[in-house]
Amino acid sequence: MSQTLETPLLDTVDTPDDLRRLEKSQLRQLSDELRSEMIDAVGSTGGHLGSGLGVVELTVAIHYVFATPEDKLIWDVGHQAYPHKILTGRRDRIRTLRQGGGLSGFTKRAESEYDPFGAAHSSTSISAGLGFAVANKLNDRPGKAIAVIGDGAMSAGMAYEAMNNAEQAGNRLVVILNDNDMSIAPPVGGLSAYLARMVSSSEYLGLRNLASKVARKLSRRVHSSLEKAEEYTRGMVTGGTLFEELGFYYVGPIDGHNLDHLIPVLENVRDSEQGPVLVHVVTKKGKGYAPAENSADKYHGVARFDVITGKQKKASGGPPNYQNVFGETLAKLAESDKRICAITAAMPGGTGVDKFAQAHPDRAFDVGIAEQHGVTFAAGLAAQGMRPFAAIYSTFLQRAYDQVVHDVAIQNLPVRFAIDRAGLVGADGATHAGSFDVTYLATLPNFVVMAAADEAELVHMTYTAAEHDDGPIAFRYPRGAGVGVPLPETPERLAIGKGRVVRGKASGGKVAILSLGTRLHEALKAADQLEAKGLATTVADMRFAKPLDTALIEQLTASHEVVVTIEEAAIGGLGAHVLTFASDAGLLDTGLKIRTMRLPDMFQDQDTPERQYDEAGLNAPHIVETVLKALRHNSAGVEEARA
Amino acid sequence: MSQTLETPLLDTVDTPDDLRRLEKSQLRQLSDELRSEMIDAVGSTGGHLGSGLGVVELTVAIHYVFATPEDKLIWDVGHQAYPHKILTGRRDRIRTLRQGGGLSGFTKRAESEYDPFGAAHSSTSISAGLGFAVANKLNDRPGKAIAVIGDGAMSAGMAYEAMNNAEQAGNRLVVILNDNDMSIAPPVGGLSAYLARMVSSSEYLGLRNLASKVARKLSRRVHSSLEKAEEYTRGMVTGGTLFEELGFYYVGPIDGHNLDHLIPVLENVRDSEQGPVLVHVVTKKGKGYAPAENSADKYHGVARFDVITGKQKKASGGPPNYQNVFGETLAKLAESDKRICAITAAMPGGTGVDKFAQAHPDRAFDVGIAEQHGVTFAAGLAAQGMRPFAAIYSTFLQRAYDQVVHDVAIQNLPVRFAIDRAGLVGADGATHAGSFDVTYLATLPNFVVMAAADEAELVHMTYTAAEHDDGPIAFRYPRGAGVGVPLPETPERLAIGKGRVVRGKASGGKVAILSLGTRLHEALKAADQLEAKGLATTVADMRFAKPLDTALIEQLTASHEVVVTIEEAAIGGLGAHVLTFASDAGLLDTGLKIRTMRLPDMFQDQDTPERQYDEAGLNAPHIVETVLKALRHNSAGVEEARA
Repeated sequence: MSQTLETPLLDTVDTPDDLRRLEKSQLRQLSDELRSEMIDAVGSTGGHLGSGLGVVELTVAIHYVFATPEDKLIWDVGHQAYPHKILTGRRDRIRTLRQGGGLSGFTKRAESEYDPFGAAHSSTSISAGLGFAVANKLNDRPGKAIAVIGDGAMSAGMAYEAMNNAEQAGNRLVVILNDNDMSIAPPVGGLSAYLARMVSSSEYLGLRNLASKVARKLSRRVHSSLEKAEEYTRGMVTGGTLFEELGFYYVGPIDGHNLDHLIPVLENVRDSEQGPVLVHVVTKKGKGYAPAENSADKYHGVARFDVITGKQKKASGGPPNYQNVFGETLAKLAESDKRICAITAAMPGGTGVDKFAQAHPDRAFDVGIAEQHGVTFAAGLAAQGMRPFAAIYSTFLQRAYDQVVHDVAIQNLPVRFAIDRAGLVGADGATHAGSFDVTYLATLPNFVVMAAADEAELVHMTYTAAEHDDGPIAFRYPRGAGVGVPLPETPERLAIGKGRVVRGKASGGKVAILSLGTRLHEALKAADQLEAKGLATTVADMRFAKPLDTALIEQLTASHEVVVTIEEAAIGGLGAHVLTFASDAGLLDTGLKIRTMRLPDMFQDQDTPERQYDEAGLNAPHIVETVLKALRHNSAGVEEARA
Repeated sequence: MSQTLETPLLDTVDTPDDLRRLEKSQLRQLSDELRSEMIDAVGSTGGHLGSGLGVVELTVAIHYVFATPEDKLIWDVGHQAYPHKILTGRRDRIRTLRQGGGLSGFTKRAESEYDPFGAAHSSTSISAGLGFAVANKLNDRPGKAIAVIGDGAMSAGMAYEAMNNAEQAGNRLVVILNDNDMSIAPPVGGLSAYLARMVSSSEYLGLRNLASKVARKLSRRVHSSLEKAEEYTRGMVTGGTLFEELGFYYVGPIDGHNLDHLIPVLENVRDSEQGPVLVHVVTKKGKGYAPAENSADKYHGVARFDVITGKQKKASGGPPNYQNVFGETLAKLAESDKRICAITAAMPGGTGVDKFAQAHPDRAFDVGIAEQHGVTFAAGLAAQGMRPFAAIYSTFLQRAYDQVVHDVAIQNLPVRFAIDRAGLVGADGATHAGSFDVTYLATLPNFVVMAAADEAELVHMTYTAAEHDDGPIAFRYPRGAGVGVPLPETPERLAIGKGRVVRGKASGGKVAILSLGTRLHEALKAADQLEAKGLATTVADMRFAKPLDTALIEQLTASHEVVVTIEEAAIGGLGAHVLTFASDAGLLDTGLKIRTMRLPDMFQDQDTPERQYDEAGLNAPHIVETVLKALRHNSAGVEEARA
């Protein structure tokens, strides 16, 4: 830890057991030290700052009141769990957050028994908690499940499905609604308005008063009785109708930074024979660190920063991000094409849709964390003649897969999918990797699936998608900065299902590399090295995983000795499609040294993208090695391999 | 139509325009005739009966009041749309329902301009309707969207996501909640209880009274004013808090079989300047046909039946259904293994979980139409030491794909997936086909993916899954009857990733067929025919798409001239995995005539499964043809093909 930090109390707390040995009166100081430690740590690593700062007191209070890890504490999303990690035996590694080999930026089962259920995608905690609670109920074991879920995460249908099923858990399930009235972007939709209305009500304004009354009542109590428990858990403030309709006992709202409010209420909920209980806690994101408190969205996820000034140490200059290129290209196209709309699911900044929204506010739709709705909404727009772009991260599009199949592909509706964060994503790790979209989209009839090799290609593909009214079309591109190629003045409409030879000759050579996406640049590096060894190398940017450029594949397989496919995607993508076409067309009948390079059959932990691709075996040296091994195979031991 | 039916008024109505020319006083008779026609038609075709009978009056009233097809009427799920089809120009084909070449059993864009958005999976209508409404708003065009959604469909998170985003549609969106208090199975969860509570309230009991007051008010009105519209739309009965919290104006409940109630309310909603409006309509499933009214679940989807007696013409005898084999096997295993649980998403009968539930009610969970929650709930159960089986149709598991990836696969939790309706499904058509699960699951690290070749294999795989605690495992099997093999007395625990040679010798032959799933029997038929031509044929049941039996593949590819893979799945499945392994291992370097047979790159319409597989090219003759063509390719024209 930082040498300038004084954390005498926190230094005595390694696990929640230590915490529970403290006096209640010491918890305020502990929280302050915890907050300082967290700011200092994230200052050195970067990461999610505001969310964790908002739940410092809540984290302390939950571990103080509940018997973790016997009681299962499940943080929804998990990016607010840094204080939790510090208090659960991981303080010594907290400055490795999101680094290769370090702590995950989310909760993770493999990391600690205090993380009973990992997270990273939103809105899963109530379902998981219900699973724990019901398992305990069936086995007549003690132990509660506590799900802590933000108001933004409540916009996802999955949370609603879980709440609608929660009644069976009884008092074994506690849901804590962490309402900071700001998820990643400004909240949207009816539920947020509902929450805001409650919080601004006279009941909420009288909260201090009420809470002190409760505190007085509690001190008079010797034993909790069922009646009183119910009185406290239900009666504090009337409100929470929506939750009560779904079968919850509603308690709140509570000031989430006031331990004198939090702890008695949580103790009461813990001891209640009624349930499930929803505790509505109001917190401030970034609490206690002025730069974070004041700048909202900017401090959701941060780069390393100077703790005193709050200034982030971001690199400047360099090529533009793919996200910005997409957003600006789409905004420009939409100036002359009034049919273009953009849909984002709570990621306007992350996807570049914010740039579109600035120029065309009427045609930008942030549906909240609601990918399912977002995709079918886009399908409805398309059916009525609009040109909708659903801009969703690859990993989050998984949540709308049925809508992609059922509402878009089967109906052959021209929804455009701008698939951000394709391939490995660095510090966010396995849960955010965009590994599967090529496979799960290219298997669908009617779909066109593209991948951009660089930011200029992304401009062309955005335009190509806009003009493609024949059915669904998707284009994927990675997180972060482009490769630095000049952006085209005028976007080009690409021929559907046609690749391009970037280097060498389609008509002949020793080695052909068929690339999909930004591995193209590694393929070109590999080609340099292969040529240096006297191996004539052709490199093609296939552009399309579907439909395949079958003419190009026929030509390249016929005229090269070794053919290698490479993509930033799991098995089932370009390589599988090329092999399937080639085998069925008889192109492999007389022998071809064909190899597929793709993401490995494992979930890769966080690291820099470069090191992740190295681990995946998808950089230039791996391509060279694959080619050379295939060639050696020929001279040395094919028969052996097939014996 | 049937010769015995007298439908003089219906005979004059070909489209909604004809309907709108009738007097209101004639609509009762029209509804009665429509109901008779529908009963008669479904008696001859089979199909969804109860749902359509429940909305006869609602269908008439909506088309009477709204300007379809300019106004977009979207039936959620679509299985209740038979009366709608009869009234929208499709009466002459209504007795082709669900037959090959006939009308779809659901709404379908290709079928009629009155089906603006196709359906079949539940809970998509509000999102789609919102798309239409917003497109009209952006283009300043008239036209409303009317989404009709059942109370069961409201348990899906997607409906909630859509409602949470609906406010922007204003009065262009009307949601009609068709509350028959019974979706497919008895309703579950808090929302159903909430609806039931409302309906049984004193307000509802006073409905007739209130409705007649409204009718009187309406008759006094000359022009609708904004104030009055709001009064009528909001004020009829207080209630519907949940919907109002989400930004809707709530109207209801209304008796959905009383045209004198329905029509004035819908006219009022149509003319309202407020919105979006949710109209809560109470209907009785099966209304007007005693056998359907009285037997609830059984008349949801029916076989052909005798109209007078209501007796269904189901074939009896024959091999047991896969569903029953699964349910009974699991129930039996659970007698000695208290960790086994079963989860279904509103399909207890369809999946066989009802059989499990009878024996083990505490360990059976019907989560409603909430696959997302169901899968993560199962993950929570698994994390706490239970052995959960999520029994979900292949096509519906798509809706939980992110949960499968994020909560199950990444965490390597041993959730067991019993994937019903794998492959083509017959009368339900493209929307219900289980085409993609092998591809979208086998691409995931940690997953084991099996397919049962027959009902005995299903017994073994159910047991194998139960005993597999190392991570997620899935097994798929088709709809309907098994092939008639004897069921094993004692289930066998299969070796993970090992196939079996069913016919011929792994060590040598001319042709090897690698089968996954129930195509095995077509493969065996094909082997007979190939042997008759003097071609020694080896048939392997691979059992596993992942992990592959690589040793068996090495052996078979080394010792046969032609290798064919076959599966009831789309591209990216067994064939792709075999090819990927074989190419990377160098097994194709010196030439192998390898071919993959799989579902074609198209969405196939309804027909009998046999004819669907014929269209797909996956029956025995197609296998023979593929083999012979590959062999001819050798002697005649490989070089030509590669020129």
